Amino acid sequence: MTHAEPAARTAATTISSRLASFASELRLDEVPAAVRSRATHLMLDALGISLASTRWDFARATLAGLRELAGPGGDVPVIGFGQNLPMRDAVIMNALLIHGLDYDDTHPGGVIHATTSVLPAALGLATRLRASGAELLAAYLVGMETTTRLGAAARGGFHQVGFHPTGLIGAFGCTLAAARLLRLAPDTIADAQGIALSFASGSLEFLQDGAWTKRIHPGWAGAAGITAATLAKNGFVGTRAAYEGRFGLYRSHLGPLAEQCDLGLASAGLGQVWETSKVAIKPVPACHFTHACADAASLLHPQWKGAPVRRIVARVPAGVMKTVCEPIDAKRRPANAYEAQFSIPYSVATGLRLGGFTLDALEPAAYQDPQTLALAALVECEADPKADFPRYFGGEVIVELADGRILRHSEPVNRGAEGRDISDGDIVAKFHDNAARAVSRAHADHILNAVLGIEHGDTAKLANLLGIAARLENT
Amino acid sequence: MTHAEPAARTAATTISSRLASFASELRLDEVPAAVRSRATHLMLDALGISLASTRWDFARATLAGLRELAGPGGDVPVIGFGQNLPMRDAVIMNALLIHGLDYDDTHPGGVIHATTSVLPAALGLATRLRASGAELLAAYLVGMETTTRLGAAARGGFHQVGFHPTGLIGAFGCTLAAARLLRLAPDTIADAQGIALSFASGSLEFLQDGAWTKRIHPGWAGAAGITAATLAKNGFVGTRAAYEGRFGLYRSHLGPLAEQCDLGLASAGLGQVWETSKVAIKPVPACHFTHACADAASLLHPQWKGAPVRRIVARVPAGVMKTVCEPIDAKRRPANAYEAQFSIPYSVATGLRLGGFTLDALEPAAYQDPQTLALAALVECEADPKADFPRYFGGEVIVELADGRILRHSEPVNRGAEGRDISDGDIVAKFHDNAARAVSRAHADHILNAVLGIEHGDTAKLANLLGIAARLENT
Repeated sequence: MTHAEPAARTAATTISSRLASFASELRLDEVPAAVRSRATHLMLDALGISLASTRWDFARATLAGLRELAGPGGDVPVIGFGQNLPMRDAVIMNALLIHGLDYDDTHPGGVIHATTSVLPAALGLATRLRASGAELLAAYLVGMETTTRLGAAARGGFHQVGFHPTGLIGAFGCTLAAARLLRLAPDTIADAQGIALSFASGSLEFLQDGAWTKRIHPGWAGAAGITAATLAKNGFVGTRAAYEGRFGLYRSHLGPLAEQCDLGLASAGLGQVWETSKVAIKPVPACHFTHACADAASLLHPQWKGAPVRRIVARVPAGVMKTVCEPIDAKRRPANAYEAQFSIPYSVATGLRLGGFTLDALEPAAYQDPQTLALAALVECEADPKADFPRYFGGEVIVELADGRILRHSEPVNRGAEGRDISDGDIVAKFHDNAARAVSRAHADHILNAVLGIEHGDTAKLANLLGIAARLENT
Repeated sequence: MTHAEPAARTAATTISSRLASFASELRLDEVPAAVRSRATHLMLDALGISLASTRWDFARATLAGLRELAGPGGDVPVIGFGQNLPMRDAVIMNALLIHGLDYDDTHPGGVIHATTSVLPAALGLATRLRASGAELLAAYLVGMETTTRLGAAARGGFHQVGFHPTGLIGAFGCTLAAARLLRLAPDTIADAQGIALSFASGSLEFLQDGAWTKRIHPGWAGAAGITAATLAKNGFVGTRAAYEGRFGLYRSHLGPLAEQCDLGLASAGLGQVWETSKVAIKPVPACHFTHACADAASLLHPQWKGAPVRRIVARVPAGVMKTVCEPIDAKRRPANAYEAQFSIPYSVATGLRLGGFTLDALEPAAYQDPQTLALAALVECEADPKADFPRYFGGEVIVELADGRILRHSEPVNRGAEGRDISDGDIVAKFHDNAARAVSRAHADHILNAVLGIEHGDTAKLANLLGIAARLENT
């Protein structure tokens, strides 16, 4: 018994069909070498973070939950835990490890974290399929180039309505990456995106009370994308106007703000302009608005040498004060790691006292340290009318010492902004700082070589290297 | 290393907390016997449909896809296929079987199909947990009472924006049913609902082109609900204002229409008024708007006796014509089963010629039958100004025979509407008609006894009975 082909299939060229053609036709040898190299460094950045995350409570709770759901066994390694999960659960878990510390890469166009959904989905399915490293890299690029564009097309609308693009849009990018690995025909990839529309989700309500839900969005997107692509492969019929339809992604999820969308951005320049190269790396594990002040304070650390302080002034763009300076009393005493990431007083105190704001600063021992809190209590925030915001998230720190001396440093252009790119070398250094929290230097080097050489390497070998149990508390 | 408790947890009584208390505290012996009995009949209705669905292409394609995703094995039976899948995949599959023919029950308050998401989720998890039949029934009631209320609170808004409440809201009801089976504490159940907000989805875009996606929404909701509850059990922190928050379910998914919501309905009368008793059973496997005309034509069948027809007039409420009468030429020649379900001319022709509109009418052999199509071509639709719509979906059929005789029958109140309840006996008869399409009468009787006796029965036994491969094409 069969259902006949639906009568009203959209015949015209849709966004789905354009993205499907790109996913199907991308040839790695037509991607500029610099883009391919940057892509492997983005992967490296994400994987370093994932190793560091293995030590956190959210990782352990999620792994316990997924293990209970899945039962024993599985065919895809969980990063750093020395155990496997069934593919879709491993994808959920590995994505949580990448995104859980809010330290992973961001595409500025749609303020979307793309690697965290796309990489674990592509890695999980490629491991299952025993795909080559080149195919993993191609699938990753397919997911990155589409996720970033679909996010940018909304022109900020999802954040206003209350959806988290990293999850909501990630589901489509992961569908395309999975479809590439499954070598689906373009028509089938269009169906797959139409199925993903039924699975895509991600709420911003966590902003109100600090719930953990943000962390699981990219992995849920990855599992959704793999499911959608596999169902389409087996003949499941999806909608064809998943994006621009009457009840498609943008209209249903943006309501009146759908009018602000630029749907042309969803496929503009595909295969010609490489959005992957525009993805921003976080140099500091905290809100972007705090980076310049954290860096400025860190640079003053060698001159300060613990001298008594009278007061500290942090000058920031007026547009960021609500997020990272107010209310000032609460910002001076962060109650948890999340609040520590959104505090100018805490980031300035940490930089000045320790010479850098690293993942160490998110530990309770750090944000509850009396000496750091004593410095944070002296920080006053001022709006800097000369700040070139939002182009740059600048900051200046002025330390008035008890003996009358003044220490000051300004970072008008934050690291990672236009003109201060994060280099591949910076990424490697960040990787080693993160990886060292979980694995030996020798093991970190093995992973680094496997990731940066993935184009001529082997997916299963990389997955197995990543899966090896981290030392410290995870064994 | 731990994250400290988020600072801004909502302390006041939320919808989440009220539903959590209900889920935790419901005692089966405090549920009226009539409600418990009706609940088992709703379960029976759904399971009969699921058996009939096993013969359809959408069932086979989905099962193949889920099998590819899951690999071999699994601990929960797939209804009628003689094989198991891992729990969450079995939930997706069994829900698809219940909902796939659009023949399953509906709660009129939110126009939401509740059994199709709640029953497979509860059955899957209860099977895994080896829970008693009484606990399965209690979890089912928890899911039904909450899903129906959460749907009603939106006052029709989701359909206008483009979300399918059966999936979107079903995720929360399934979370509550799963939480009940896991015996979570009320606080943990509140967390679970906050996690479900990140997973809930379901798009109405399938309405535009007849895609299959509607069918997978209830199962995706079930898998989401079980996942949310299990993560919460393991310490994952969810948002606490999942429904009424700034970016909670109703505001984010309804936009300006959130103003129309009545959030009081989400928990009104919990444990006192039983929404489960108000759930409507479909007597005919087609759009509700066609039932009265299909029945009227079927009742004229014995008098008609194949006499030549000059013309047929179908009189329907003006408010339904757009959906089931226009464009008239397309409605007279349905291209697929889905279109056959939304056609007054086809339902009238089928009823007149065959004496009833059953699942047989959705087979290509039926909707492509030249004699039925010849009758359908003679059907003209007229608005009936006296129709009491939308209270009733009435209809009248007038057959003008070539010899001048007039046959007419009016069904001003459709079966299943207020005052024409579908009895438990009607449900048993419908079950047998559906089950007979897949299994022997003896096996159907075993299932019927296990379902209607579930309160004192065994979940695993029921699941195993359901899982036995249907005869015909499925073995």
